[in-house]
Amino acid sequence: MKYVSIAPDGKEYRIPTEEDNAAERALLDQITEEQRKMGRKIVAVQGLGFVGCVMASVVADATDENGNPYYYVHGHQRASKRSYWKVPVINSGIPPVASSDPEVPEIFHRTVVEKKNLRATSEDYVYSLVDIVVVDIQLDATKPAFGQAELGYCDLTQFREGIRTLGQRIQPHCMVLVETTVPPGTCEKVVKPILEEEFTRRGIDINVNPPLIAHSYERVMPGSKYVASIRDFWRVFSGVNKKSIELCHEFLSNCLNVEEFPLTQLDHTNASELAKTMENSYRATNIALTLEWAKFAEEIGVDIFKVRDAIRMRKGTHDNLLRPSLGVGGYCLTKDPVLANWSMEALFDLENALHVAINSVNINDTMPLHTVDIIKREFETLNNVKIAVLGVSYLENVGDTRHSPSKTFVEALRKEFAIVKTHDPYVEAWPELEEAVVEDDITKVLPEADVVVFAVGHTQYLKLAPADVVKMCNTKPLIVDCSNFLSDETIAEYKALGCKVRGLGKGHIVD
Amino acid sequence: MKYVSIAPDGKEYRIPTEEDNAAERALLDQITEEQRKMGRKIVAVQGLGFVGCVMASVVADATDENGNPYYYVHGHQRASKRSYWKVPVINSGIPPVASSDPEVPEIFHRTVVEKKNLRATSEDYVYSLVDIVVVDIQLDATKPAFGQAELGYCDLTQFREGIRTLGQRIQPHCMVLVETTVPPGTCEKVVKPILEEEFTRRGIDINVNPPLIAHSYERVMPGSKYVASIRDFWRVFSGVNKKSIELCHEFLSNCLNVEEFPLTQLDHTNASELAKTMENSYRATNIALTLEWAKFAEEIGVDIFKVRDAIRMRKGTHDNLLRPSLGVGGYCLTKDPVLANWSMEALFDLENALHVAINSVNINDTMPLHTVDIIKREFETLNNVKIAVLGVSYLENVGDTRHSPSKTFVEALRKEFAIVKTHDPYVEAWPELEEAVVEDDITKVLPEADVVVFAVGHTQYLKLAPADVVKMCNTKPLIVDCSNFLSDETIAEYKALGCKVRGLGKGHIVD
Repeated sequence: MKYVSIAPDGKEYRIPTEEDNAAERALLDQITEEQRKMGRKIVAVQGLGFVGCVMASVVADATDENGNPYYYVHGHQRASKRSYWKVPVINSGIPPVASSDPEVPEIFHRTVVEKKNLRATSEDYVYSLVDIVVVDIQLDATKPAFGQAELGYCDLTQFREGIRTLGQRIQPHCMVLVETTVPPGTCEKVVKPILEEEFTRRGIDINVNPPLIAHSYERVMPGSKYVASIRDFWRVFSGVNKKSIELCHEFLSNCLNVEEFPLTQLDHTNASELAKTMENSYRATNIALTLEWAKFAEEIGVDIFKVRDAIRMRKGTHDNLLRPSLGVGGYCLTKDPVLANWSMEALFDLENALHVAINSVNINDTMPLHTVDIIKREFETLNNVKIAVLGVSYLENVGDTRHSPSKTFVEALRKEFAIVKTHDPYVEAWPELEEAVVEDDITKVLPEADVVVFAVGHTQYLKLAPADVVKMCNTKPLIVDCSNFLSDETIAEYKALGCKVRGLGKGHIVD
Repeated sequence: MKYVSIAPDGKEYRIPTEEDNAAERALLDQITEEQRKMGRKIVAVQGLGFVGCVMASVVADATDENGNPYYYVHGHQRASKRSYWKVPVINSGIPPVASSDPEVPEIFHRTVVEKKNLRATSEDYVYSLVDIVVVDIQLDATKPAFGQAELGYCDLTQFREGIRTLGQRIQPHCMVLVETTVPPGTCEKVVKPILEEEFTRRGIDINVNPPLIAHSYERVMPGSKYVASIRDFWRVFSGVNKKSIELCHEFLSNCLNVEEFPLTQLDHTNASELAKTMENSYRATNIALTLEWAKFAEEIGVDIFKVRDAIRMRKGTHDNLLRPSLGVGGYCLTKDPVLANWSMEALFDLENALHVAINSVNINDTMPLHTVDIIKREFETLNNVKIAVLGVSYLENVGDTRHSPSKTFVEALRKEFAIVKTHDPYVEAWPELEEAVVEDDITKVLPEADVVVFAVGHTQYLKLAPADVVKMCNTKPLIVDCSNFLSDETIAEYKALGCKVRGLGKGHIVD
């Protein structure tokens, strides 16, 4: 058995041996000495996922008025088979994430290859050398039962381990900046006790050197402005004590575009942690509301999307009303309300009582079943009905399948014994539904389809001519529009070609 | 028994006799003839409540490019003891509503006295003379059980009667524009059948002359921009057929500032009716969400209002997050979700299923109980506790008490045998809680108070100096802030004076 980590492109990377690690530690010492001589502070980013890797490059890219980088940045990734490959890939100047944002490869090349102040490592030893650690450990919510987010919880095991590693290594002056979205209370009630315990074990007097812990959450948006969504965007922050707040303020002010996007300081980490989960709960609730109105609209011949546009004319108060769709996916709206609700009891000994937000998660999680119902109304049975699903990512023009509603949708169709084929031009693999074959050639999913579902608004789908779709199908398929992807004109074309058309929230197209 | 109608200022107006009415009919004929010669169309506004009276003045105030009024406007108000006084008051050039908007008296004087193209009448005969009727009949939802808006319904009796009056009178070419917020489906399923029935009864062939019915909802905001909120604001409209839509488009384009605030046309009255109730449901849901987070914030030492400000930094997507308070009042957010939910079954034979919106109404209706709980935590019993409530209107700097949350609040305190005194500089009478004496002199409610509740954010209250309040009380009262009316500095002053301070959503001030 070879100890290798395999990158998405199939290339294998050998996981470091203890000998490699000894050499790495010597190299880290050498780098630190050199960089300190250049007056730079040393930063480690813990966890090189979607946020961590780009945050690391943004920190490395930040310079003072003379163009000198403030920081040398170590990206730290554990040497697991699943993720170690990111270390050598980054060190070759290549980002470990695919993105439609052209700035992503640019900033990695600039910091790793040109400025040479970003480097990845898998050696924990690095934490003993740094002034700042940015914690970007992934943290998910577990929802043990479908549609019952009230039972959701958060397994902090790995997060605690990561923090303990820091407690065992960092110097007392090192600021730990938690950027991971965490249950409110985590910095105060999880991070702080662990660091205090490990400091004490190491003989550090925590009365003289209380751990320096700050929290500032990212508002990353995947897509074409990925880097800007980290660097050029409003940030909220706080810390567990005055010194932490000061250090965090200095760090964020150095790294981010705070002149155009001023920082918001809150009184306590509890507040900034709560703010993050509340803002995503707000969006989740906003979407959940729309589903019930969409169903009503379907029944009374109304186009909910035109209603939405009418409401959104009220600038400043109503223009952010979201829209119903196949469902809600991604990493934030699906889990953040659960983190907050769970923390009420788990961290504060209160009753879990964020009912509005949790109910919204339940509505959103089960939203794909409504599109199944729309299809079922048109068939006596879905047994052997051939259904082509166009789009399996959770967002238009993005290949991210995390918590994609298409998963719930496809599984529900299969339960009815439908024959489901899926297509997505952006998705290479669908790890959440591994047995599904995601085609990137539309001619492999359309032929003989009884139903064509426009599940995601990828630009490629919006350009499809009805005549071509019907020709490829060689049937007169039922066309299903999940979120107003088809214009009234396109719908009329499909109807003229003999197809039935149905749409979520589109009561006006029912014949 | 004198047949008089008494205005709010106490002045009595004799209700017209049949002789008066005969003279009025002759006058209406004469006015119509004169005005038609001047090329003007004739409009009636049915119902001179908060919306109708100002809408009537806006329509009368509209002129063509030569400064000539498009319309002569009859405001129609039934000759009831409760409301007839509005007719003579308007005809003297005085608005029948109190408002902080200086444009209200101006526009009434301009149209009634100067242009002489606005006049009020109580004679139904007027409807036989007009080209357009704007329906502004009041329509409320009934909620038979506190906190159970799912049982809510809408009594359409009076609305139907008003529409029948039109059906019995109007000429076939007359457009009926419903501006009242109605349950979705009302134009199609209530207004249209009544007009068709009455037309048929009158021998009008409804195949040749189908009733012309349009719907366009107002978005009135009481306060200092009352007139502008009708005239200079986005409007949504539709009609039951093509001709109605055309006529409505022409009418609104003539009357409103559609260049700056373009009209939104929807396909059907069902859609525009649904839009109105949905946009208010959206706001109601937005507020309901915040209460649960405010309670969480209270428990974990967080200021929810600072969190809200942090979230609202995200311009365009999150900056309209509303805030928790004593509760939600007024005429729209409290009833519109109920109208829509009820109509699902009553008008469309569907299951009432707007659970998110209805649940939000329930949360909002019961929100005042949370402030009661905040007070109860500080006393063994509320029996004989003296509580001064500052503010009983539903909105700051406005005297409108309709559905004010202070009513629920005061009633709940009284149930606990507290001794409640209320103050409001804007409220002369509190018809919803008639036995309550609303003082306009703060020195009559503060002395000996054990608790001072800042219930509404009237500017006058925000200016109160803590030292003065404590001195007037001659106690060290518990200070309760219902919606972030007191700054951290003011709170510190109260504490320095020996007062305890508590606030909804303000966990950080707990000592």
